[in-house]
Amino acid sequence: MSGLFKQLEAADDGARVDLESILSEIKFNADGLVPAIAQAADSGKVLMLAWMNIDALRETIQSGRVCYFSRSRNALWRKGETSGHTQLLVSLRIDCDGDTILLEVEQAGPACHTNRPSCFYLHLKGDSVEVRAGV
Amino acid sequence: MSGLFKQLEAADDGARVDLESILSEIKFNADGLVPAIAQAADSGKVLMLAWMNIDALRETIQSGRVCYFSRSRNALWRKGETSGHTQLLVSLRIDCDGDTILLEVEQAGPACHTNRPSCFYLHLKGDSVEVRAGV
Repeated sequence: MSGLFKQLEAADDGARVDLESILSEIKFNADGLVPAIAQAADSGKVLMLAWMNIDALRETIQSGRVCYFSRSRNALWRKGETSGHTQLLVSLRIDCDGDTILLEVEQAGPACHTNRPSCFYLHLKGDSVEVRAGV
Repeated sequence: MSGLFKQLEAADDGARVDLESILSEIKFNADGLVPAIAQAADSGKVLMLAWMNIDALRETIQSGRVCYFSRSRNALWRKGETSGHTQLLVSLRIDCDGDTILLEVEQAGPACHTNRPSCFYLHLKGDSVEVRAGV
């Protein structure tokens, strides 16, 4: 674990470090990406997980609109740019070891490309998996 | 995207497929892992993100206790085995393209190794990041 995140493990509530120092120590993977979880600010529902590179992360912070990195298109993915299903950033958190982002968002329309509210619509039920969009 | 997940995109609520078919098409990364998000069943709080290989995923489903794969120890990580901070599985979901798991859990004690309730205690505040464990 990097020095800064290790140091913050023992910090008291209210301790602050500057954003640039944190950004410089985020642990992007070999492809330069970290997973970002989007959670609905109103319902607490987990909507999706996508990936961010440093540019996507900076753009999200600066613009207040969530921008991911599309692994399939190998390009920045401004969520909702074509669909209209944007995500307004409500809060952004980083985890203890600096390798995951948690976004609280105001989701416009469905988060999922299937037009379901959340991407997590495949539910384990015993020895089956059931499609249930509404929960 | 794999055939089965693609097929389920258009399925109606209530459609079912058998678990083994789903497990065989989950898109593990080059290291054989998928990210798994743990969310508290009671509060909806996102607690942590960790990784699962196929063995961890099967053990979690079969035992009802969450088991991850530790990338640092390169071994199965039965959450709480040494700390007592176990996660009882309440529900398990898979996302639309089969590359992320969402776990609803009953968390015993703090989820984070720092003894904070959640790993996401580093909050973006303007051009700083602030430690706040309680929210």
